[in-house]
Amino acid sequence: MSYLPVKQLLQTEPGQTVTVKGWVRTKRESKNAVFVAINDGSTIHTIQAVAEAGFLPDETLRLITTGACVAITGELVPSQGAGQAVEVKITEVHIYGPADPEKYPLQPKRHSLEFLREIAHLRPRTNTFSAILRIRHALAFAVHKYYNDNGFYYLNTPIITASDAEGAGEMFRVSTLDPINPPRTEDGKVDYSQDFFGRETNLTVSGQLEGELGALALGKIYTFGPTFRAENSNTTRHLAEFWMIEPEMAFFELEDNMNLAEDFVKSVIRYALEHCADDLAFLENRLKEEEKTKKKEEQSEMTLIEKLRFVVDNDFERLTYTDAVEILRNSKPAKKGQFQYEVGWGIDLQSEHERYLVEKHFKKPVILTNYPRAIKSFYMKQDESTTAPGPTVRAMDVLFPGIGEIIGGSQREDDLEKLTTRMAEVGIEEEAIWWYLDTRRFGSAPHSGFGLGFERLVLFVTGMSNIRDVIPFPRAPKSAEF
Amino acid sequence: MSYLPVKQLLQTEPGQTVTVKGWVRTKRESKNAVFVAINDGSTIHTIQAVAEAGFLPDETLRLITTGACVAITGELVPSQGAGQAVEVKITEVHIYGPADPEKYPLQPKRHSLEFLREIAHLRPRTNTFSAILRIRHALAFAVHKYYNDNGFYYLNTPIITASDAEGAGEMFRVSTLDPINPPRTEDGKVDYSQDFFGRETNLTVSGQLEGELGALALGKIYTFGPTFRAENSNTTRHLAEFWMIEPEMAFFELEDNMNLAEDFVKSVIRYALEHCADDLAFLENRLKEEEKTKKKEEQSEMTLIEKLRFVVDNDFERLTYTDAVEILRNSKPAKKGQFQYEVGWGIDLQSEHERYLVEKHFKKPVILTNYPRAIKSFYMKQDESTTAPGPTVRAMDVLFPGIGEIIGGSQREDDLEKLTTRMAEVGIEEEAIWWYLDTRRFGSAPHSGFGLGFERLVLFVTGMSNIRDVIPFPRAPKSAEF
Repeated sequence: MSYLPVKQLLQTEPGQTVTVKGWVRTKRESKNAVFVAINDGSTIHTIQAVAEAGFLPDETLRLITTGACVAITGELVPSQGAGQAVEVKITEVHIYGPADPEKYPLQPKRHSLEFLREIAHLRPRTNTFSAILRIRHALAFAVHKYYNDNGFYYLNTPIITASDAEGAGEMFRVSTLDPINPPRTEDGKVDYSQDFFGRETNLTVSGQLEGELGALALGKIYTFGPTFRAENSNTTRHLAEFWMIEPEMAFFELEDNMNLAEDFVKSVIRYALEHCADDLAFLENRLKEEEKTKKKEEQSEMTLIEKLRFVVDNDFERLTYTDAVEILRNSKPAKKGQFQYEVGWGIDLQSEHERYLVEKHFKKPVILTNYPRAIKSFYMKQDESTTAPGPTVRAMDVLFPGIGEIIGGSQREDDLEKLTTRMAEVGIEEEAIWWYLDTRRFGSAPHSGFGLGFERLVLFVTGMSNIRDVIPFPRAPKSAEF
Repeated sequence: MSYLPVKQLLQTEPGQTVTVKGWVRTKRESKNAVFVAINDGSTIHTIQAVAEAGFLPDETLRLITTGACVAITGELVPSQGAGQAVEVKITEVHIYGPADPEKYPLQPKRHSLEFLREIAHLRPRTNTFSAILRIRHALAFAVHKYYNDNGFYYLNTPIITASDAEGAGEMFRVSTLDPINPPRTEDGKVDYSQDFFGRETNLTVSGQLEGELGALALGKIYTFGPTFRAENSNTTRHLAEFWMIEPEMAFFELEDNMNLAEDFVKSVIRYALEHCADDLAFLENRLKEEEKTKKKEEQSEMTLIEKLRFVVDNDFERLTYTDAVEILRNSKPAKKGQFQYEVGWGIDLQSEHERYLVEKHFKKPVILTNYPRAIKSFYMKQDESTTAPGPTVRAMDVLFPGIGEIIGGSQREDDLEKLTTRMAEVGIEEEAIWWYLDTRRFGSAPHSGFGLGFERLVLFVTGMSNIRDVIPFPRAPKSAEF
């Protein structure tokens, strides 16, 4: 290429003729000169291009407006102003595409996140969203790098599936049948045998079951792909389409699984700290401004980067669900009746309980283990003997400040009889996942795995508060634009 | 972890006590000893464990059968046999999970690929499929590494979409409406306003249009995700669900696009050559055996690895569609009437034509450019003036031996008026992709991109001939098991 991205230009020695290609962020005119700030998405920073007053034809100057796309050639010189080492002394300007200031929605002023969600096709051109997307990229790359470096194989589990791994979760139906007059069976149901796949199919809610097939052949695998939930919940924490990372490891027991989860999540956050310093600094400032609008007691005690360093530098607290329930029952909010949901052994811990443990009691990430069997999935390994009040499974949830559950996993039940007995109890037919059961029939092995919702990780690292702001084109109820 | 994967064990100095965990591939008994070959998926190789005859209890020996999962502890000693440096002198055997030889389908003999497709949940335990999946992983990682190293940002374009990027291609409908009695509008159509997303939605056929939004903000982006085609074609080249890589770059013109495509595909193949030597050697031998069953004239002139090196080491031939048509018209097969489809300017080149150019005429990968506008998509940049017999676009297809088109791309039309005129000609409504047009309204820039079907790349690198054998769980008409 005959030009350098802004990121490289800003680190180039002055004294040569260069061409900048990018979009105008701002134009400022003084009595003696015109200053144009250009960004090309390669970095949060702009490069400044300067021309003496009168140098540029009026026709050109008129077209240099926020959002216009330009190629500017000139000498790279030491910058007079603060904040940048070099700037471009303009000799030539080419306008690729103007941006009519009357119509272009992204003017140099603060836009609300709500407004920007409506123009998700343009919001990556803002500082906030370009920073988020660059960090999202860095985290995704860190995920692949971590698993590759540690001997895992990337396994693409199917998106269209005839099985429901979680046994729960509303699913999206995938079909090519005539939607008005689908073929019917004799008893009046839709005849899916005539559908594209010859059966009823849905979008996957998890690649775990297929991931286990991979682990019980290749040893250590991970998935990183889209998953889907057709839940009609319009919250700041849920998406209908989101990306999930699911490692599965043969010969890993619960303890190994916890070690991996902690090392993994620390490693990718450390990668972001090392590779996204500028973007994180920008988002840290953004968060500071946002925090100022909050009540004192709701403001965070730590800045964004302090929070990330804190996670990376500290051991996660590990305790059983049973011990956590004891702590919660003896907690101030429990005694004062401040929890909305009463705490007792067997309940599914609510967000308020998780946040108390993480943010108030331990003040660091927490790994809860050995949950009651009744509130967890059929495939989790049953504990042999415990002092808990009821049967438990070797589950583990990693809880993060502000986010709640960021990772959910378990050792998997590898005993065919225990597994099928549990399936019968919860009403899952063996024929539906005969292939899954085959791995327990032939060469069964202890194994474990977990899932991490990628957008929750991006949410945590960027300090954003609405999950729709950390994925390029969010999918939610009544929302599939772009 | 208290044990090492087989891959590391085989490179460990003898003299220490180790534990091997994995699946028995074979057991061989001689008068004096029993030899067990164990594989754990970390490598194509097995590690041999040896016990003197009589050392293992009969009950244990009986359970050491092909497919059983074991942990074997013993001293790592220099191997007596050929083919491996070290072996394990057994002191202890633990059977995690047996595999009844009467029932376990993967016995140590040659299974047909057709049979293995029916047990896709177990086929990763075979040498062929574990090799393919490890290579698939290496290629996927090489893709991410290449783009990360070159300043691209990974962009997750939506899977569920209301738009059809190609303007063609059968799509899968995504819905949560009652399939039997969907709500209807007054004129009797399905009332999609009541569907989950408030409109009709489908699975994406390409992330390109959204990718362009990213490139025109972040500069250089790439996608790597699943795409879908509901085409009822049961061939060895098509899948209903496959993974696609789609880079989009601002300020790249056709020439830059070609340079990137060639450098990219060479780079990832080179990565596989460097990182998957053992697996490629295994698949090369497999292919040699397969070739022996073919007629002499159908046998490949090069081995698998020679073919890969050839692609990496040679410049791709670049020529226009118009020049290619001339070559084809003057070719022997054309003159002898051996082409099934007649060649003339304006036709969509068929597989037989592409293969002639690549395999017979140039004997290397070919990049064809400047195709007739009529046979290409609306979004491709129109050529200004050419000597071609009709209007052309700045398209480029990369053709590979044995595979045909492996990459298709173009410079994109950045002129709003030309774009909308072309859309009107081919019947695409502006309202359907108003957001796409916005990028030409505001700050339009020259830009380019291409798409590479990941499975076609894996097919080429592994030397397999059916695309269903290079994705873990293939989706095809009447086939969505696992």
